[in-house]
Amino acid sequence: MPAMEVWIEYASTYSYLTVARIGRLAAQQGVTLDWQPFFLPPVREHHGLGFPFPEASAKTAYMWRDLERRAARLGIPYRRPAVYPVNSLPAARVALAGKPEGWCQRFTEEAFRLHWTEGCLIGTEDNLRVALASLGLDLAHVWPLANSPQNKEALKAQTPRAIERGIFGAPSFVVGDELFWGDDRLEDAIAWAASNR
Amino acid sequence: MPAMEVWIEYASTYSYLTVARIGRLAAQQGVTLDWQPFFLPPVREHHGLGFPFPEASAKTAYMWRDLERRAARLGIPYRRPAVYPVNSLPAARVALAGKPEGWCQRFTEEAFRLHWTEGCLIGTEDNLRVALASLGLDLAHVWPLANSPQNKEALKAQTPRAIERGIFGAPSFVVGDELFWGDDRLEDAIAWAASNR
Repeated sequence: MPAMEVWIEYASTYSYLTVARIGRLAAQQGVTLDWQPFFLPPVREHHGLGFPFPEASAKTAYMWRDLERRAARLGIPYRRPAVYPVNSLPAARVALAGKPEGWCQRFTEEAFRLHWTEGCLIGTEDNLRVALASLGLDLAHVWPLANSPQNKEALKAQTPRAIERGIFGAPSFVVGDELFWGDDRLEDAIAWAASNR
Repeated sequence: MPAMEVWIEYASTYSYLTVARIGRLAAQQGVTLDWQPFFLPPVREHHGLGFPFPEASAKTAYMWRDLERRAARLGIPYRRPAVYPVNSLPAARVALAGKPEGWCQRFTEEAFRLHWTEGCLIGTEDNLRVALASLGLDLAHVWPLANSPQNKEALKAQTPRAIERGIFGAPSFVVGDELFWGDDRLEDAIAWAASNR
């Protein structure tokens, strides 16, 4: 089956629209997802790019309205969270720890769903605990794994890997040598993966 | 008929994808287009935003590949122009001068087509002359009108009008109080206009 890398930053707003529908879209097209949790800030710093949505800017005001409107158009539940941006590092570490165990996608879907529909914020212990519990996992068992030196190093190593692929934002999708950036390119990326099998 | 404002910056790359198909899409949905040529740099400066695609950056490298791939996907002819960015001011002035005379859209379509398929660069006298000639107009007659004090002032007045609408990039579309940014939102904007008639 053709594979597509899915690069997700857990504080990214538009990544919610992707996480909420990518599983269904990929399954419909027979595309396998290779989840790549990463931490975007050092990648943007490498490129000399600042934080994309500074408070009280026209672009950020637009982003919130656009997100709400797009969610409605795509049929995705949406409730604007009280906090932005969140500390995404704990969620990224847990997600990466779940990759070899096969629950990275399900954890990611649940963590985002809790954040964007129930006000249970990504980055909080609550979010991690409830998301893991829905997979039948216990935070007390997962937390040491997520914070092991190996897992922390693995997440750090995602930075040069992202840069190598030309990634500068999230969500990003990689199919072979082709990079697709943004939730707006999700359908194109999946179609590309499906047609290059 | 429902109306949609179309804010075009003539040096904007993604605006080409919009200009190449907006006439057809709007006609299919029965949406009237209200063309709003403007000069984006002072708008971005107002917002504290820099030039979006600096040379030799990962984001700019992505933009070129994405543009080529999107054009292919949308069935739009594409040949990467030799120069970027171009001086868009002469084209913006001519386009605005054509608004009361009813040829703003046709001039814009032809100016972009020449730039993006024939290497006849927007901002050059050649581009203006050939684009106007295809509408049966003579650059020698249009040029003084485009550079009249009134027309120059009218283009300058587009800057605060754009800012008032929350615009920070191009292309942008405005339907009532709703702002849509980017070629990626063209279909959404037209659907919004069509459903709010």
